[in-house]
Amino acid sequence: MAVTVNPDLRKERENASFHPENVTNFLYGGPAVVKRKRELESLVLNDPDFQHEDLNFLSREQQYETQLKKSITMISKGEKLKITDAQDQLFYRSTVVGSDAPSFGVHVIMFLPTLYGQATQEQKDKWLKMAEKYAIIGTYAQTEMGHGTFLRGLETTATYDPTTQEFVINTPTITAYKWWPGALGKTANYCVLMAQLYIHGKSYGPHPFMLQIRSLQDHKPLPGVTVGDIGPKFGYNTIENGFLAVNNVRIPRENMLMKYSRVEPDGTYVKPQSTKLAYGTMVFVRATIVVQSASVLAKAVTIATRYSCVRRQSEMKPGQPEPQVLDYVTQQYKLFPYLAAAYAFWLTGQTMMSVYTKSSNKISKGDISVLPELHALSAGLKALTTWVANVGMEECRMACGGHGYSHASGLPRLYANLTAGATYEGENTVMMLQTARYLMKSYNQSLQGEKLAGSVAYLSGVQPVPAAGRTRNMLDLGVLCDAYRHRAARLVHEAAVQLRNERQAGKDQPDAWNAASVDLVKAAMAHSQYFVVKNFAERLTDSTLDSSISDVLTRLCQLHALHGLVNNSGDFLEDGYLTGTDIHQARRLINALMAKLRPDAVALVDAFDFPDGILNSVLGRYDGNVYEHLLEWAKASPLNKTDVHQSYHKYLKPFLEANRAKL
Amino acid sequence: MAVTVNPDLRKERENASFHPENVTNFLYGGPAVVKRKRELESLVLNDPDFQHEDLNFLSREQQYETQLKKSITMISKGEKLKITDAQDQLFYRSTVVGSDAPSFGVHVIMFLPTLYGQATQEQKDKWLKMAEKYAIIGTYAQTEMGHGTFLRGLETTATYDPTTQEFVINTPTITAYKWWPGALGKTANYCVLMAQLYIHGKSYGPHPFMLQIRSLQDHKPLPGVTVGDIGPKFGYNTIENGFLAVNNVRIPRENMLMKYSRVEPDGTYVKPQSTKLAYGTMVFVRATIVVQSASVLAKAVTIATRYSCVRRQSEMKPGQPEPQVLDYVTQQYKLFPYLAAAYAFWLTGQTMMSVYTKSSNKISKGDISVLPELHALSAGLKALTTWVANVGMEECRMACGGHGYSHASGLPRLYANLTAGATYEGENTVMMLQTARYLMKSYNQSLQGEKLAGSVAYLSGVQPVPAAGRTRNMLDLGVLCDAYRHRAARLVHEAAVQLRNERQAGKDQPDAWNAASVDLVKAAMAHSQYFVVKNFAERLTDSTLDSSISDVLTRLCQLHALHGLVNNSGDFLEDGYLTGTDIHQARRLINALMAKLRPDAVALVDAFDFPDGILNSVLGRYDGNVYEHLLEWAKASPLNKTDVHQSYHKYLKPFLEANRAKL
Repeated sequence: MAVTVNPDLRKERENASFHPENVTNFLYGGPAVVKRKRELESLVLNDPDFQHEDLNFLSREQQYETQLKKSITMISKGEKLKITDAQDQLFYRSTVVGSDAPSFGVHVIMFLPTLYGQATQEQKDKWLKMAEKYAIIGTYAQTEMGHGTFLRGLETTATYDPTTQEFVINTPTITAYKWWPGALGKTANYCVLMAQLYIHGKSYGPHPFMLQIRSLQDHKPLPGVTVGDIGPKFGYNTIENGFLAVNNVRIPRENMLMKYSRVEPDGTYVKPQSTKLAYGTMVFVRATIVVQSASVLAKAVTIATRYSCVRRQSEMKPGQPEPQVLDYVTQQYKLFPYLAAAYAFWLTGQTMMSVYTKSSNKISKGDISVLPELHALSAGLKALTTWVANVGMEECRMACGGHGYSHASGLPRLYANLTAGATYEGENTVMMLQTARYLMKSYNQSLQGEKLAGSVAYLSGVQPVPAAGRTRNMLDLGVLCDAYRHRAARLVHEAAVQLRNERQAGKDQPDAWNAASVDLVKAAMAHSQYFVVKNFAERLTDSTLDSSISDVLTRLCQLHALHGLVNNSGDFLEDGYLTGTDIHQARRLINALMAKLRPDAVALVDAFDFPDGILNSVLGRYDGNVYEHLLEWAKASPLNKTDVHQSYHKYLKPFLEANRAKL
Repeated sequence: MAVTVNPDLRKERENASFHPENVTNFLYGGPAVVKRKRELESLVLNDPDFQHEDLNFLSREQQYETQLKKSITMISKGEKLKITDAQDQLFYRSTVVGSDAPSFGVHVIMFLPTLYGQATQEQKDKWLKMAEKYAIIGTYAQTEMGHGTFLRGLETTATYDPTTQEFVINTPTITAYKWWPGALGKTANYCVLMAQLYIHGKSYGPHPFMLQIRSLQDHKPLPGVTVGDIGPKFGYNTIENGFLAVNNVRIPRENMLMKYSRVEPDGTYVKPQSTKLAYGTMVFVRATIVVQSASVLAKAVTIATRYSCVRRQSEMKPGQPEPQVLDYVTQQYKLFPYLAAAYAFWLTGQTMMSVYTKSSNKISKGDISVLPELHALSAGLKALTTWVANVGMEECRMACGGHGYSHASGLPRLYANLTAGATYEGENTVMMLQTARYLMKSYNQSLQGEKLAGSVAYLSGVQPVPAAGRTRNMLDLGVLCDAYRHRAARLVHEAAVQLRNERQAGKDQPDAWNAASVDLVKAAMAHSQYFVVKNFAERLTDSTLDSSISDVLTRLCQLHALHGLVNNSGDFLEDGYLTGTDIHQARRLINALMAKLRPDAVALVDAFDFPDGILNSVLGRYDGNVYEHLLEWAKASPLNKTDVHQSYHKYLKPFLEANRAKL
């Protein structure tokens, strides 16, 4: 069936300076990957078994049930179709679930990896096959009502009883309730439980235990187990997050995951060799979040950009037709910087993943020398990209005016789900302070004459000396990278000075750190932004880059760097590194770049290659037939099932009649 | 019943430097008002008829029905209790609905005022009493699917037929569907419809018409009327926004609201005397939004600040108890600037309201000379305060960590509802450009030697000459106001230069305006921020200000000004008005101010005087008993009605059993 594309969008596509397919290939790693991606997407999007009512029309309980059914279908069909390759699975699954959470997400990304990583061979033999085949559904129960970030603060206890060779599990207080684990409330029947290990009255810190929470016969909570849903949330309401309290539940000694630490039958505790190995997983998870930030930002920008070409508004010139909203420079200034950021983060995510893959070999061989840098880098980039994606998604939503506020746009749901990225897997400020800790350590090493390598090499020997009187070409990516580098180095230096001053004023180390923490976060942010800009510029020097797309990608890189520079202009001006004239020039160049990017905007979002079935947005439809489908979507709203809602008879009619009688 | 207050919160209250009641009196206008406010709040909060299940637990249809019932109760009881004073009604109603929308909101704030303002006496006699007594429920149908901001673009037509003395109403296209009016979908039976008036084939622009849309007998849509719900939205789901299409519906000539324009029986069109009078209402509505921005920001900060004193996290010093989260300087840096902004906007809102009240007398007498300035000021302040409130609400939510993401915190719902303020009643960028238009006009007048008055007086004669070499006390409110004034004047000047340059480069006026629009928005923003800072500082010089609270309020004002200065430091550095040393000093002063405000933080949010029943937040409870009530709230979640959810039997059980069989 031929689809008529909205003429405005058609014209946009005709006028683009490049073929979006070339950028798509660049973004996904070549035509073969793109082809496979589309095959897998079609498998899902053309399968009636995956169709269902818009989740926005359903109550939370209905959403939970719909997602459970769909997740089971996804697993069963995936098995039949033999989708086993990791990348294939990613394409397949993300098409099924879009921006929502799958029902067994924590089972796959936390429960299984914990068994792989921390169970002994005997334990794997016992549980792994069951878990891999979904004969049991697990979750990872670490966070408690009163304890998140601070692992050592956990209150749940596992007390070893050598007489029976069992652990006795307890939730001693209300704040010790496990709280937030995904699928814990109604779905999982097993969990890995993090609890404080006690042997002979002595505490050995948090350890992982395998705990069955529901009966395999009837799914009822086992004796001593209180489990439930923690209630509705801002987003991710297709899954339930759960609470769990345990009262004197005994589990065999063999249920402690003992690949690293061990408890012998007599209660002897055997220490782990290294505790740093778990950092590898954290780096991977954070790199995944960077990739995700790029993707959600790309989705939001796709929706807002297409709609801004379909939507016409106001009268720019008397008597002329209403212009496309994207022709307003203020609209470009809202969207194009986030378009550029989506590209920047996409490439950052790729670099993170490839660095992780290269390093994970070393790490698995026990060489953890790369971990501190990787860990620091991934923490800061996780925080930076989720923060920017958060603000960007909302900017895109508001750029769509009133219709952006409707769930028809897809944007409120995207935001409500994905904004959680700033909080989970390490709250962002905590993340930035971890990066700052590494920066301070590196800075001090360089002061002591050590040569720094990797992402902090620039801290060695860089003197914060402003270069006055130079004239600069602010479009030159070398000039821009230098400016970001200088700013990062200076802010790291400033934070270190601030820390030293606080110490010299008499504060102890923790208090001085706290007093300097705003400057430390600022330094970590500048470091992370420098990495993103430099990485983007470096990718453009790739000799395999298709020449037909290097112009437009260079513009995006320039815009990304200049926009960040103008937005933080004080940081560059404060020590005179840049001048007011430079900033003024930067502003004018942004305007010029936006004008050049304007005709390519739709092609640049098309290149992200999100099918409509994944975008789930009436405003962002590829064919641009927005208004017809807004009406169609609205008509399907549950409140429209009857012309007169039942509440009229119950409440409104008696009210109106009584009021009329009083006239 | 004595409530045990969380000991941490109790201690906070004991250590405050002032009595919050004094600030409450300052904020609300004296003890008598505060007393009346609390009486009215108690009337609602202690009345079982207003109790209902947490709206977050309900489907959208249930929320609609619950709110309808509650709104009817509110009106009936309000009548019985004779709550007629405008301020009393505001206290009473906002206690009933909290941050959600009442069912007949548009009836009260748009439909009735339109009848008051635009109906003739005969029309008032016919409809007003019915509307006032809720014998009919109306809405205001202006926005169309394809047309929001641009009134002249409306497509709905009202064609006069002199032979029958009727208007024929039509919705000629899909984009002409009325879209978004509140309560239009299922609740209202009347509306004021804005339609393009056609007489003898000639267009006279948009005019208001009284249109009945549903039968008073059975509430069914009248013949020719298609009406329904536009579907679920990000927030405000207690009400339905509606769509409306009209097909050849005839209404009598007398149904055009004719106080200003008239159509005579023979089709003669009589022009209105002035079209500017409607601006008065817009100013009032925007001032109301400024007040609302202050209030929602105050609510969010109250929740986050109290919770940050109850929540303890991590180990700052080995062996010591986990500190209160608010003792982390990064947490203070997230919350205190928004605490200060809430106070700043609260006072801005009061000033706007009092300026409006003073002016409205003049306006109602036909003297509209004050309108352009008022209009420009209200537009910019509406945009500034809603933008800041948006970002601030989300900052507060994320500052509450994981629990902030739960609906138990009250913050997601607050945000999802109130973020709409950036879009409705004039999209914020459009608002800022309206302010900019007035600034450019004033600037040009001052160039031509005219003396400017009021909020733009400072544009006269201010030369953007940097004052080098001065040392400044950056805590001095005079110094800070001067800096904001200089920045605003300079950015207005820069935008004007930019506009001129674009014209000189050959662009026509609309294109030049568009090309300079980013600078114009920036100038309007700086102008609005200057107004807020100056207004705050001026309020502190009030001789009636209670001396016990002037210290703490001064700190808030300093923090507000310094935070905005540091956040936009480039604007102050770019022309050398401030130096790097000034900015550095400002940063240190912010740290010092935060340390001084820390012991007063809880008292400062207590002073906003929001009862728990209005905050609707487990985290923000006055008594701080957060954790017990998190559990209680979660247990009431609909998914916990049964231990084993029905979906287990439908989907999970067969899946698990099949997988187990395959092992």
